Amino acid sequence: MSTLCLPHVMFPQHKITQQQMVDHLENLHADHPRMALAKRMIANTEVNERHLVLPIDELAVHTGFTHRSIVYEREARQMSSAAARQAIENAGLQISDIRMVIVTSCTGFMMPSLTAHLINDLGLPNSTVQLPIAQLGCVAGAAAINRANDFARLDARNHVLIVSLEFSSLCYQPDDTKLHAFISAALFGDAVSACVLRADDQAGGFKIKKTESFFLPKSEHYIKYDVKDTGFHFTLDKAVMNSIKDVAPVMEKLNYETFEQNCAHNDFFIFHTGGRKILDELVMHLDLASNRVSQSRSSLSEAGNIASVVVFDVLKRQFDSNLNRGDIGLLAAFGPGFTAEMAVGEWTA
Amino acid sequence: MSTLCLPHVMFPQHKITQQQMVDHLENLHADHPRMALAKRMIANTEVNERHLVLPIDELAVHTGFTHRSIVYEREARQMSSAAARQAIENAGLQISDIRMVIVTSCTGFMMPSLTAHLINDLGLPNSTVQLPIAQLGCVAGAAAINRANDFARLDARNHVLIVSLEFSSLCYQPDDTKLHAFISAALFGDAVSACVLRADDQAGGFKIKKTESFFLPKSEHYIKYDVKDTGFHFTLDKAVMNSIKDVAPVMEKLNYETFEQNCAHNDFFIFHTGGRKILDELVMHLDLASNRVSQSRSSLSEAGNIASVVVFDVLKRQFDSNLNRGDIGLLAAFGPGFTAEMAVGEWTA
Repeated sequence: MSTLCLPHVMFPQHKITQQQMVDHLENLHADHPRMALAKRMIANTEVNERHLVLPIDELAVHTGFTHRSIVYEREARQMSSAAARQAIENAGLQISDIRMVIVTSCTGFMMPSLTAHLINDLGLPNSTVQLPIAQLGCVAGAAAINRANDFARLDARNHVLIVSLEFSSLCYQPDDTKLHAFISAALFGDAVSACVLRADDQAGGFKIKKTESFFLPKSEHYIKYDVKDTGFHFTLDKAVMNSIKDVAPVMEKLNYETFEQNCAHNDFFIFHTGGRKILDELVMHLDLASNRVSQSRSSLSEAGNIASVVVFDVLKRQFDSNLNRGDIGLLAAFGPGFTAEMAVGEWTA
Repeated sequence: MSTLCLPHVMFPQHKITQQQMVDHLENLHADHPRMALAKRMIANTEVNERHLVLPIDELAVHTGFTHRSIVYEREARQMSSAAARQAIENAGLQISDIRMVIVTSCTGFMMPSLTAHLINDLGLPNSTVQLPIAQLGCVAGAAAINRANDFARLDARNHVLIVSLEFSSLCYQPDDTKLHAFISAALFGDAVSACVLRADDQAGGFKIKKTESFFLPKSEHYIKYDVKDTGFHFTLDKAVMNSIKDVAPVMEKLNYETFEQNCAHNDFFIFHTGGRKILDELVMHLDLASNRVSQSRSSLSEAGNIASVVVFDVLKRQFDSNLNRGDIGLLAAFGPGFTAEMAVGEWTA
């Protein structure tokens, strides 16, 4: 059995309130015919503020994919190392104990990936297995947890460092004027997390019992990137909101097989915050009171949708809440594919 | 114990001989001061011909990252499905038997990745685990094999489909005039492979006994991409040639721990063909006769360096050679990081 230890979550220095973002968009697209609708939809996101790697005025002038890739790499190198060191300490491990490093990030591209930087900068063992994941978007954090868990099941010394890093603001495309582009520009936030999955029982946290993967056929258009000269352009089909009804039975099955109870009887949830509507769909289809996903709602409000980092931010909030040893929980995230990754387990902290 | 079954390898329709490539470069950069040196270095690659997804005249006019991404996706969808179907048949399995799909490709970017396309197009189970790997370059094929083997060790039904797809020609940058850009433009080829790793003993092939990962510290600059408005720009430091002397002892250790013999006593090798010089370094540091890596040399000569596809092309060539059941072999590939992934095993076909 392996355990997700206390994550370390970091945010870049610049902040923007949702009102500032609305002002920015109104200013940039003064005569856009659907701005009033966009403003209502942005208000509906229930995002209050977000952190950005650069101030919004700088981001509004697209400096090109070449320049943005340089900014991405500079910030990524710096923040990932700091987060990783703290996460390893949180897990009560030494640098030399790590056997695999996973990096999830869909908002920039580096080759060699950040896994190489982390091995060099932290001094991880030369035999460290590298698993960089760039193409799983918002589900990548949970996918990393599940693949780390697979690896940990092979050997009780297979401790895994997972670093998730998203600078969505570097994918902000000020010339994209479709409604969904406005929404994503106001929804996604920047953040970095690091978390260790210990392959043994020697730390408290979320002890994983079982994992599951789910793919929804014929839904590649729900969440996707157009890859252009100007970098990654996020596109979203509102049909994605219908996906949770198909995932919920898979979660219930996983939960019942493991604990012989429905999700509604669980003590806690670590849900990805695709957006307010996704959380509303989750509570509806799993028959939960709305406040059962309060940590996910707080994360969304205070940081926006921070993509693959979300599950770690919500996990950290569970460490700060009043869970008891033996409490039962479900972790789940959703992303392009359409893909869901789920894990059920027990609180041991 | 899991077994790599007979791969299916496909090449795109356009071909270019190395003489045609030299003529092309001379024509494009008629007054380049180091063209004579470039020609000698290109001759030294010992690449005879390569396959390209588009004719070289078309590639010489850079149509932008937006357009190239469209071409990448179109060709990737078509070729990957065809290769995957044949690989599953080669393994004696049904579509419904596949539990994980890995796609390796560093020469284009899609989100959702090709893993989603393959689940849809082949009709793989909705519970299929997806593992897209974009940032491991030439080592990704061997990394995929080793991660597939990890997954297969968990359950004898954990069969894995690995699709590797490289259209290096879509990263051809006709305006890059440094020597290493000319060399890479003449070295890398396009190809697609699919291969199934069966988690049981019910098929003949390369039965994996043990795997190992190796990272060479402070070598991120050896093999890297600059990510620009025009896409991925490959850069190579000739220091990479010195890396094999550091990897060779790791291979020897893995081999000895598994078979109590040095690599030189093995019956066969499945080596990535970084280039002629890398193969020369391998035979030197592992104390092999030059003809022991003939399948890798043939692959290099007939297809160029096809990045993450190489190990599967060389594996296929081993199926066509005269190996005997029980023969002992070593598989290894090298890529950005600098990273090496290795596996030792036994021939069972």
